[in-house]
Amino acid sequence: MSDRTEISSLGEFGLIDHLTKNIELQNASSVVGVGDDAAVIDHFGKQTVISSDMLVEGVHFDLMYTPLKHLGYKSIVINISDIYAMNAIPTQVILNIAISNRFSLEAIDEFYSGVYAACEHYGVDLVGGDTSSSQQGFIISVTAIGEVAPGKFVKRSTAEKGDRICVSGDLGGAYIGLLFLEREKKIYLENRKIEPDLESESYVIGTLLKPEARKDIIEFFEVQTLVPTSMMDISDGLSSEMLHICKESGLGCVIHEDKLPIAEEMRSAAYKFQIDPTDCALSGGEDYELLFSLSQNDYDKITLNEDISVIGYTSEIETGTRIITKGDSTYPITAQGWNAFKKV
Amino acid sequence: MSDRTEISSLGEFGLIDHLTKNIELQNASSVVGVGDDAAVIDHFGKQTVISSDMLVEGVHFDLMYTPLKHLGYKSIVINISDIYAMNAIPTQVILNIAISNRFSLEAIDEFYSGVYAACEHYGVDLVGGDTSSSQQGFIISVTAIGEVAPGKFVKRSTAEKGDRICVSGDLGGAYIGLLFLEREKKIYLENRKIEPDLESESYVIGTLLKPEARKDIIEFFEVQTLVPTSMMDISDGLSSEMLHICKESGLGCVIHEDKLPIAEEMRSAAYKFQIDPTDCALSGGEDYELLFSLSQNDYDKITLNEDISVIGYTSEIETGTRIITKGDSTYPITAQGWNAFKKV
Repeated sequence: MSDRTEISSLGEFGLIDHLTKNIELQNASSVVGVGDDAAVIDHFGKQTVISSDMLVEGVHFDLMYTPLKHLGYKSIVINISDIYAMNAIPTQVILNIAISNRFSLEAIDEFYSGVYAACEHYGVDLVGGDTSSSQQGFIISVTAIGEVAPGKFVKRSTAEKGDRICVSGDLGGAYIGLLFLEREKKIYLENRKIEPDLESESYVIGTLLKPEARKDIIEFFEVQTLVPTSMMDISDGLSSEMLHICKESGLGCVIHEDKLPIAEEMRSAAYKFQIDPTDCALSGGEDYELLFSLSQNDYDKITLNEDISVIGYTSEIETGTRIITKGDSTYPITAQGWNAFKKV
Repeated sequence: MSDRTEISSLGEFGLIDHLTKNIELQNASSVVGVGDDAAVIDHFGKQTVISSDMLVEGVHFDLMYTPLKHLGYKSIVINISDIYAMNAIPTQVILNIAISNRFSLEAIDEFYSGVYAACEHYGVDLVGGDTSSSQQGFIISVTAIGEVAPGKFVKRSTAEKGDRICVSGDLGGAYIGLLFLEREKKIYLENRKIEPDLESESYVIGTLLKPEARKDIIEFFEVQTLVPTSMMDISDGLSSEMLHICKESGLGCVIHEDKLPIAEEMRSAAYKFQIDPTDCALSGGEDYELLFSLSQNDYDKITLNEDISVIGYTSEIETGTRIITKGDSTYPITAQGWNAFKKV
């Protein structure tokens, strides 16, 4: 970008005005939006669902290979994914950011263009937030708000024995995308004349940089009058999330390796890194697909949806959490999910 | 503290479990709390009020003179203050933190002890949040959630001409507290043998480090069946907030210097710094008192409350925003509020 406007030239209120001046509220539930001490929301008898997450530069994202517009989009998506994971519909978001003076107004505008694109795509209103300075880096905190008919939310702890275990979409792509971009970054830092070839791996890179939340699956449930017995979104990896559901529901499970949904593009990319695609599908994080359990009686309904895979079933807690491989061996499932505090 | 437990020894889920294991939900509206993809709240026909703010180490607080327990308490207080400023009652909070490995588990426990003390004092439930690592410093993002009877929320933009302008409590203490602590820090860094004398200025220091939100004023309104015509909390200084209300309500105002509520302790501390106490009251931030406008007809009711001062009245927009000094001179009110992006 050729122009650079310092954030300090606008001041905090000037910046907020600049970033929020074109907001048009889309939801009747957004009673008061940006510009007061707080937002006011009326879900008209429905229950309110709220989730909040923080993204920290250098921990959750690397701006060397993450375009700011994608980062803005993803910040919203991963938070409303938590709302869908409760079987609810997202209606509003609140966005707090802290930025160092390394960032220009033009850079923040790029970020917000992604935020607004996600808000438009998912029909949610940005109703508040806070911008402040940071000493170092870019920190993002998003609160997503949604609504659900009373009692229709779906928790992690309510799976029952003999339920089918299902996932939406394909797994493991985001992890391979991350490996690929990290490798290209290293090569580039060693020799800045080598342009990375991103085109060939556009599937896995896209999965990492521009994930989508599974609005369509929640809408499919609604149309089919299906209510999963338990559900969560896959942000830390299938194994880790499966263990959460089993632990909190007091159950065991059996997962079949040959049922794991793996895209061909992910499989071939994994082989290039000499990694087992099954490992990626089990332990790679950031897929933002939905993992849910379903009563056997509802099994017929989901066969209508090609984007849902049945990967196993829940069992008694005594049988443990197991995976049966293609070679018919049985192994325990262990959490290999991403740990923000683990020293690498 | 003698013991030091590394956060990394617990992992993210272990840390969240440790920090939230003793939560007992206090409000019937807290349907699902910590431990799922999202919290579920049912305000049973009331409207939901939501506000979120970020606090960044080195920008909003200095751990050299801010005890972690006070910081935890203040993080909650300043956010629920925004809920009260809408004439609503806070019911839940969500807390996200990002911390560098400089912080031990014991330090985080200190911080949380303040968080829980504030939650208990104000009757709010901690229902969610996210802990992650940061590359540098301590970053806090709090989302406060509250409820209000439909249409009973009070905005900034709805003051009317001829309304009385009122503030709760005393003004300017937090600013003088900050000046004092900054001075003592500088002296200490120059000569670490000099112990700062904090006792003598405990009033202004307390105002800065352990502010309270004006729950009592909102309860007083309820008892008196009073609804202010506009309201906001004073976080950036009286002048700045007064200009917000006037601008957004399309009005001017007259403030009387001799009506500004100033505590004796603040006045004498200001003189030690050779600063005009009126300047502190007008421009000092972080008081978290309530600024509101009231119809003349309601004037009698507030005389019952010694903690509310009438400091002026609203006027036509053409007359501008003015202060009349003790010497009967008239000056325009200018925003000297705190600007997070202003280079100092």
